[in-house]
Amino acid sequence: MRLFVHKFEMPNQNDEDLDMNQKGLTFPDSQTQDVPYIHKIGVPPKPDFLKEFKTTVKETFFPDDPLRSFKDQPKSRKIILGLQAIFPILEWGRSYNVKKFRGDLIAGLTIASLCIPQDIGYSNLANLKPQYGLYSSFVPPLIYAFMGSSRDIAIGPVAVVSLLLGTLVRSEFNPETEQDEYLRLIFTATFFAGITQATLGILRLGFLIDFLSHAAVVGFMAGAAITIALQQLKGFLGISSENFTKETDVISVMKSVFKSAHHWNWQTIVIGASFLAFLLVAKYIGKKNKKLFWVPAIAPLTSVILSTFFVYITHADDDGVAIVGKIAKRINPPSLDKIYFSGDNLLKGFRIGIEAGMIALTEAVAIGRTFASMKDYQVDGNKEMVALGTMNVVGSMTSCYVATGSFSRSAVNYMAGCQTAVSNIVMSIVVLLTVKFLTPLFEYTPNAILASIIISAVIGLIDIDAAILIWTIDKFDFVACLGAFLGVVFISVEKGLLIAVAISFAKILLQVTRPRTAVLGKIPMTSVYRNIGQYPEANKIPGVLIVRVDSAVYFSNSNYVKERILRWLTEEEDDPKTTYQPKIQFLIVELSPVTDIDTSGIHAFEELYRSLQKRDVQLVLANPSQQVLDKLYAAGFPDLIGENKIFLTVADAIHTCSPKLNHEV
Amino acid sequence: MRLFVHKFEMPNQNDEDLDMNQKGLTFPDSQTQDVPYIHKIGVPPKPDFLKEFKTTVKETFFPDDPLRSFKDQPKSRKIILGLQAIFPILEWGRSYNVKKFRGDLIAGLTIASLCIPQDIGYSNLANLKPQYGLYSSFVPPLIYAFMGSSRDIAIGPVAVVSLLLGTLVRSEFNPETEQDEYLRLIFTATFFAGITQATLGILRLGFLIDFLSHAAVVGFMAGAAITIALQQLKGFLGISSENFTKETDVISVMKSVFKSAHHWNWQTIVIGASFLAFLLVAKYIGKKNKKLFWVPAIAPLTSVILSTFFVYITHADDDGVAIVGKIAKRINPPSLDKIYFSGDNLLKGFRIGIEAGMIALTEAVAIGRTFASMKDYQVDGNKEMVALGTMNVVGSMTSCYVATGSFSRSAVNYMAGCQTAVSNIVMSIVVLLTVKFLTPLFEYTPNAILASIIISAVIGLIDIDAAILIWTIDKFDFVACLGAFLGVVFISVEKGLLIAVAISFAKILLQVTRPRTAVLGKIPMTSVYRNIGQYPEANKIPGVLIVRVDSAVYFSNSNYVKERILRWLTEEEDDPKTTYQPKIQFLIVELSPVTDIDTSGIHAFEELYRSLQKRDVQLVLANPSQQVLDKLYAAGFPDLIGENKIFLTVADAIHTCSPKLNHEV
Repeated sequence: MRLFVHKFEMPNQNDEDLDMNQKGLTFPDSQTQDVPYIHKIGVPPKPDFLKEFKTTVKETFFPDDPLRSFKDQPKSRKIILGLQAIFPILEWGRSYNVKKFRGDLIAGLTIASLCIPQDIGYSNLANLKPQYGLYSSFVPPLIYAFMGSSRDIAIGPVAVVSLLLGTLVRSEFNPETEQDEYLRLIFTATFFAGITQATLGILRLGFLIDFLSHAAVVGFMAGAAITIALQQLKGFLGISSENFTKETDVISVMKSVFKSAHHWNWQTIVIGASFLAFLLVAKYIGKKNKKLFWVPAIAPLTSVILSTFFVYITHADDDGVAIVGKIAKRINPPSLDKIYFSGDNLLKGFRIGIEAGMIALTEAVAIGRTFASMKDYQVDGNKEMVALGTMNVVGSMTSCYVATGSFSRSAVNYMAGCQTAVSNIVMSIVVLLTVKFLTPLFEYTPNAILASIIISAVIGLIDIDAAILIWTIDKFDFVACLGAFLGVVFISVEKGLLIAVAISFAKILLQVTRPRTAVLGKIPMTSVYRNIGQYPEANKIPGVLIVRVDSAVYFSNSNYVKERILRWLTEEEDDPKTTYQPKIQFLIVELSPVTDIDTSGIHAFEELYRSLQKRDVQLVLANPSQQVLDKLYAAGFPDLIGENKIFLTVADAIHTCSPKLNHEV
Repeated sequence: MRLFVHKFEMPNQNDEDLDMNQKGLTFPDSQTQDVPYIHKIGVPPKPDFLKEFKTTVKETFFPDDPLRSFKDQPKSRKIILGLQAIFPILEWGRSYNVKKFRGDLIAGLTIASLCIPQDIGYSNLANLKPQYGLYSSFVPPLIYAFMGSSRDIAIGPVAVVSLLLGTLVRSEFNPETEQDEYLRLIFTATFFAGITQATLGILRLGFLIDFLSHAAVVGFMAGAAITIALQQLKGFLGISSENFTKETDVISVMKSVFKSAHHWNWQTIVIGASFLAFLLVAKYIGKKNKKLFWVPAIAPLTSVILSTFFVYITHADDDGVAIVGKIAKRINPPSLDKIYFSGDNLLKGFRIGIEAGMIALTEAVAIGRTFASMKDYQVDGNKEMVALGTMNVVGSMTSCYVATGSFSRSAVNYMAGCQTAVSNIVMSIVVLLTVKFLTPLFEYTPNAILASIIISAVIGLIDIDAAILIWTIDKFDFVACLGAFLGVVFISVEKGLLIAVAISFAKILLQVTRPRTAVLGKIPMTSVYRNIGQYPEANKIPGVLIVRVDSAVYFSNSNYVKERILRWLTEEEDDPKTTYQPKIQFLIVELSPVTDIDTSGIHAFEELYRSLQKRDVQLVLANPSQQVLDKLYAAGFPDLIGENKIFLTVADAIHTCSPKLNHEV
């Protein structure tokens, strides 16, 4: 009725103005007669289960609404759009021009000069012959260029994946004595890594990699970097691999380093150290002056050329300086026949492939997103995965091992002014030519140089600033970060990864198990009620306790929520400050943050209601969301506590309670 | 400044009244000059990490604030309180009187009459000799009576745990051929079940069992009930165990039932069926008329006596009616020496113990809570676990197997008017006397009766109404429920349990991975902004898009949230309806439901800000919670978007934006 009068008094008044006044200054004489306007809560119609289900599925698997552009288009157009969706090159290719090509050419040449030495080093890290690293920088980038949606990513073998793959496969076969099986398992793993990636993309399960939190990745990468650097001590000190541990954890590595001190080769160390110094200086110059980014970019190749020449003329290899040796002068041989498609090794390859594939994916997607947000274009995570997957599947049939986006090379690519994925094509062509004609030049390249190059490359993966930021922002994230780091450094790469994921999950679950609750008070001169912890000026309403629950109420927290609310009540009643105030008669639960509730949650609320009845306190709900309201109605909860006990806002609830209170006050 | 004037104009006006006016009727002439009062957001002081950490730990492990009563008490009192905390009997014992004892005596005798036949049947279910069931109804209840905090729970062996323990241990040892090892492993498992329970309680990890959602438990119990009933077909049809499958899933059981049809014994079936009918009728009577609860309560014992007498005089056992046979007439022998404390069996026992212990715990705590909320007293979950754990550890040393709270007997106990845990003492004494003097009477008890008793007992575990309610309230919960049920019935008890837990987790993670987002509009004649989906009458503000994010923003959803918000914007801009409206200039993100944020989340918001800048849309935040604000400040986000872009409410944000808008409109 009141509501009606109200409506009547202001038939066609603009809400905007009205609203200004509502919150604005008003007149003493209007205080007594004036009555608040109470808006009814939105009681939704019986929810359509199928519709709800559909939206959930859509939001889960198609959050980016990929078919958007296809809507009401002619069939022919749809086909073109479809092709463009699979091969983005068809889209950007049409607007490609000479100017863009210049950028791509320079960038391509730069990353090529960077990747060739890295490839040789990384294949070493994966216990493979040098050419396999080069192979993996030829085929995969080509395919990615046609299917990928990132413009800045540089594709090829990367340190972390090489290490992971190396350690996982070595635990199955000995790379020295069982070379053939080892190689075959590598290809099998690569194949399944690709399948995993593509499948995730096709099934729209891209969001799964989001479960590896940023913090975890930072920790993992830093740990991996240190592990990789430690592995390089072998080549750096000139220790032959039979004297070097197979473990990757810091302790066993350091042990075997010092145990084999008498195997150290001083010539190797001198060469390695001097060139490492050179590379680090180059890196430093590049950091100081962004214009000189090309200095660290070409430094590796330069040092390879110099050191190779040096060894060649001084015959240092006769003094025990280990060199790369002959590299097969042959373009990617087919390797489909090498993949295990049956038996025990199939399973092994499958298991290893999934792990390597996921890590590779995380790295690539992270890079893609970073640069996309820099240049503000979208990379479709799922599409990206299909591209990466395809390239690895094809790679596994052409003697490549798992390739993905490289942090260091992508950054160089970006700074060198790449415009499109064409820079990857340029790079792969350069690599092709190298494999075909220049491999003999690497015969005398000392392994120590490769070690130095890898060390200087992976140092970039240690992001201390990020770690500090994580610490300042979120301590729990830091724990995940640290856990991943220590796990990788002291146990093993995969264990570290597991730890990181576990901690990340634990965090989510903890938040869902022990949600925050807050007592609300009224902010002076407003109709707003906020956490009195956050707003000390907010003051409680005598005779009313307002509690806000800060999470969906699920089986995992329903009991806690119920008991916590009751505890707030007890504490309030026991509080000496409140002794002279009227006893609590209304407990208002502010449900704004309660995004969802399940059967256990409703149970808990029913129990809460009963306990409150026993203490004769009235249970009042404020601002339930649609989902919550649906379920409350489905459970007949409003009939239990009375529909008139559910309000749009805390203010409304207070207005309805306060008159009843005034009698006692 | 405005704020100041405002304050000045209403120096000592009562907020309450003012508030009434704010939301009430106002005067046209005040519209132009009037200016809204904008309250500053609560910028918290630098959060004290240690303090925060402490509260988290406290809320996680001591949500019930157990030391509350200890605060500022003299030392002596503290000791007493401490003892009472461990042995609640010291607390309620002092107010114990004859009246209460009468209630407990009756209840105790009733549940004793119910438990004796059940115990014999359940030990059969665990492939154990009858006496072990009786043993487990003697020692554990006694100990619980001193340490437990529930007044209504009836302790002893239960069907589900017996089955679980039976199947798990049988997969290690054959109960016929390896009797001794089997028994020893049972005790070992019981020991570790107790240890697990006690440890969980002592480490305050009670909340872990909350991860088994109500829905999952309903499904699991129903599945277990059916599995158990199927197991009884063996005794019911008189099939000897060598002709009966070891599997528990419905398919293999039915197969072996029909394969062994020629082994069926019609006398057995007749006896079993007729008494089953009798029991079910009794159950029905009890349901119809609560006053006659004792009918179903004593029916089992009655039928045991009758059938035993019948078999004794008719010598039906000579016609192949399987009977219980001699029961060792001896009180719990010590079994500490039987427990495996070393070797492979230790591990087996440990593994089985954890599983059985957790299930037992879930059942007991569920019962405890149910009856506690009926009589409105608190059961301390963690204290409860310590009690249950201790009783099982002691039990394992006195020839008992895992005991816990029984649904059926607790209900009877409650209805029989038990007052305290003394009813358990009464029961255990009756059981003791039975073991000592009456076991010979059970020699001729036909197994078929025990089968009928178990069947009629477990039927009560199938709660169809609950399942229906779950379906109506929450479809996802129902999936968990169904998953548990089918898993138990078609695969195995433990697999079913795993499935249930997995689905429950999946639900939480899904909710955290794909949180809901909603576009808000202004509810007419209020300053309140709500989901336009829920409140169709709410209308959007031209030139402003208000989006609410319905979850904490974590690594698992940060990307989704960012992209979803941008999609809302795109959809809004593409919407033909909005073509003649001013272009969106402000995107207000309502953070009320965002209870927490992590580094990835802040990253996402930074990226969101950048993308919005490119579309020249201003990012505005409304009502960030303290935790969110802390982290935003720690990350320097306010400096990025401008502190004046963060508001207490959406209304405030709108008021600050709208003037700027008016120029274009």
